Amino acid sequence: MTVTARQWILHQRPVGEDYESALSLEQRELGDPAPGQVLVEVHRLSLDPANRIWMAGDSYRPAVPTGGPMEGLIGGRVIESADDALAPGDWVTGMGHWGDHCLVNARELRKVPVSDALPLEAFLSILGITGLTAYYGLIELAQPQAGETVVVSAAAGAVGSAVGQLAKIHGCRTVGIAGSRAKCDWLRDELGFDAAIDYKQEDVRQALRTHCPDGIDIYFDNVGGAILEAALDNLADFARIPVCGMISGYNATERQPGPANLANLIMRRAWMHGFVVIDYLPRAETAVQRMGEWLSQGKLSYRVHGVDGLENTLDAFHQLFHGGNVGKLLVNVAGD
Amino acid sequence: MTVTARQWILHQRPVGEDYESALSLEQRELGDPAPGQVLVEVHRLSLDPANRIWMAGDSYRPAVPTGGPMEGLIGGRVIESADDALAPGDWVTGMGHWGDHCLVNARELRKVPVSDALPLEAFLSILGITGLTAYYGLIELAQPQAGETVVVSAAAGAVGSAVGQLAKIHGCRTVGIAGSRAKCDWLRDELGFDAAIDYKQEDVRQALRTHCPDGIDIYFDNVGGAILEAALDNLADFARIPVCGMISGYNATERQPGPANLANLIMRRAWMHGFVVIDYLPRAETAVQRMGEWLSQGKLSYRVHGVDGLENTLDAFHQLFHGGNVGKLLVNVAGD
Repeated sequence: MTVTARQWILHQRPVGEDYESALSLEQRELGDPAPGQVLVEVHRLSLDPANRIWMAGDSYRPAVPTGGPMEGLIGGRVIESADDALAPGDWVTGMGHWGDHCLVNARELRKVPVSDALPLEAFLSILGITGLTAYYGLIELAQPQAGETVVVSAAAGAVGSAVGQLAKIHGCRTVGIAGSRAKCDWLRDELGFDAAIDYKQEDVRQALRTHCPDGIDIYFDNVGGAILEAALDNLADFARIPVCGMISGYNATERQPGPANLANLIMRRAWMHGFVVIDYLPRAETAVQRMGEWLSQGKLSYRVHGVDGLENTLDAFHQLFHGGNVGKLLVNVAGD
Repeated sequence: MTVTARQWILHQRPVGEDYESALSLEQRELGDPAPGQVLVEVHRLSLDPANRIWMAGDSYRPAVPTGGPMEGLIGGRVIESADDALAPGDWVTGMGHWGDHCLVNARELRKVPVSDALPLEAFLSILGITGLTAYYGLIELAQPQAGETVVVSAAAGAVGSAVGQLAKIHGCRTVGIAGSRAKCDWLRDELGFDAAIDYKQEDVRQALRTHCPDGIDIYFDNVGGAILEAALDNLADFARIPVCGMISGYNATERQPGPANLANLIMRRAWMHGFVVIDYLPRAETAVQRMGEWLSQGKLSYRVHGVDGLENTLDAFHQLFHGGNVGKLLVNVAGD
C-alpha cells in the first residue's frame, strides 16, 4: 500500500521563533513498511518544548536531520505492519513524524490499551512522556518526603501539573508557578496545589518567601532563567532541584546569562540534577502502573489542550512557549 | 592567668576587597577560661576563601558578629584549660580567632598528634579542612571511577592540589586549571597531573576540549564564573560537579551573571552538588586515616605558603583571591 502523507519537513535549523522559515507542510509518498517497520495513521501529535532542542542540533539525542520530516511523539493506529510485535488496528504511541502518516521502526513504538476510560490522549500525557517525566524527576530523583515543600514552574503545563499532584500524593506542601490568574485558579481549585504564583503579576522571589516560609525542599525546574534564580534564593538546607527543562532559553538567539546566585547551592548544600525521561523508558512499566492506579483512584487528573488540524502545528508550537496551553498540548490530526 | 592578645576585630561587613576598613588589629585582655573553654597560643592561622563568606553575613553558618574577633581556623597549643578533654601543652586545630591567643570552647578543637614527620601545618592542610574538603567532595560525592576524566579549578590551591592527587590515586585522568605557568608546571611535574591549563594565557573552553577529548566526567568547582561555564560546555554524559566554592564571586559588590549554559546539565544528565566540609567533620576519622596512609606512602603531598606575622594577615588574605599562594595559605603567628 502506498499512502500520500502530509508531513512537516525540516529544511533548516530555526532561528529564534521563526519556525515558518524552517519547516513546511508537504506531501510525501510513503511506500510499504520495510522489515521491522510499521505504517501509522497519526491521530495525535504531541508538541513538547524538547522538540525545539531536537530541531536545533545534536543534544542528548542526534538532531533531526534537515530535508526530512520533523520528529516527535505521536499517537495513532497501525495500518500496515512488517513487524511481528504490532498488527494493523493496534493503538500505539512513540517517536514518529509530524504528519498524518508515518513509517517508523516498530521498536520506537509502544502498544497502548486504549479504552473508553483511557483514551489515546492519556497515553500521550499523564501515562506517557510528560507524566513519566514528572514521575522520574520528582519521585525517583528528588525523593519527596511528607511535609516537605515542593515548588514547580510551568505548573499548568503537562509536566508541571503532574508534578504538583504527585507531590500532594506524597504529602508535600505544593506551590505552583504559572502565567495567568486562570491557570493559578485551576492549580489551586482543581488540582489541590496549596498555593499558586502568577509570575506575570507577582514578584516571584517575594511570593516564594511568603508561600515557603521554611524554604523550598524541592524545586522542579521547567523554565530556568529568572524563576530559577528566585528559587535559588529561597532554598531550604539540602534542597534538591531536578532540572527537567529550561524553556526560557530554548528560542534564544544569543546565550542568556544564568542565575547570579548559584553559590546558594553551596550555602544550602543543595543539588541540581539534569535528566531526560528517555533514559528511564526501558524500565517504565512500574511507573506507568503506579500512575495508572493513582489515575483510577482519582488522585491524579490530567488536562489536554487540543489544537485541530495538522496545518496549525506551528501556530500551536508558538503557543507552547508563550503560555498558550493548559495541560498537554496535542494536535488533533485524525480521529475523535 | 590573664594574657594580652592581639586580635583582628571585625567592625563591619567588608565592601568588596576593602578589608582594611572592616577589620583592625587590636589588643584585648583575655581572662581565665570559663568551664569548657581553653586558652590557646595560636601558632598558625588558616586563611580560606570561606572566611570571606563568614564576614559577609549569615550563610551555612551564622555570620561572624561585628565588634568581636574575626573567626577562622587556627592551629596552636593549649596553655590553659578548663575542660577535661584538653591539657596545657596539647596541640590543637579548629575554629578560633584571628589573633595570637584565643579563648575558645574545647569542643571546637581537635587534638592533633604533631610529630617531626607530621608538623602542625599538615593538620591545617592535607589532614585538615582543605584535605577533607577534597576527600568528601571528590571521593564521597562524585565517586571517581578509574579511567574517568577529572578537572579541578584553583588547582594549585590547597583544596585543588589535593583533589588532583586523589583523582590520580583513583586512576583518573586529571586536568588542573591554575593561574600561572609556574603553577601549571608544579601540577604536572610535581603532583602528577596529566595536564594543566593556565587560564590567564589560554582559552579554557578550547583547552578543555583538547585535554578532555571524551568530555569531563567530574568537574570539581572551586571558582564558579567563566571557568564553570567553560566546563559546562565540555561535560561527558552523566557528569558530576561537586561545588566546593565559587571564589570568583566572593568579593563582588554586585551580583555576577551565572553560566549561560546551565541547560547543559539536562543535555548531559549531569549534576551540580554544593557541599560544606563541616557537615562531614563529625565522622571524619576514617577520611583522616586514609589521607594519612596515602601521605605516608608518598601518594599524597602538600605544600604550605606561609606568611610571617599576624600584622600581615590582611595582605595575605588579598593574595588568596588573586592567585598569590601555591598550596595552603597560612599565617605564621608563633613557633617555627
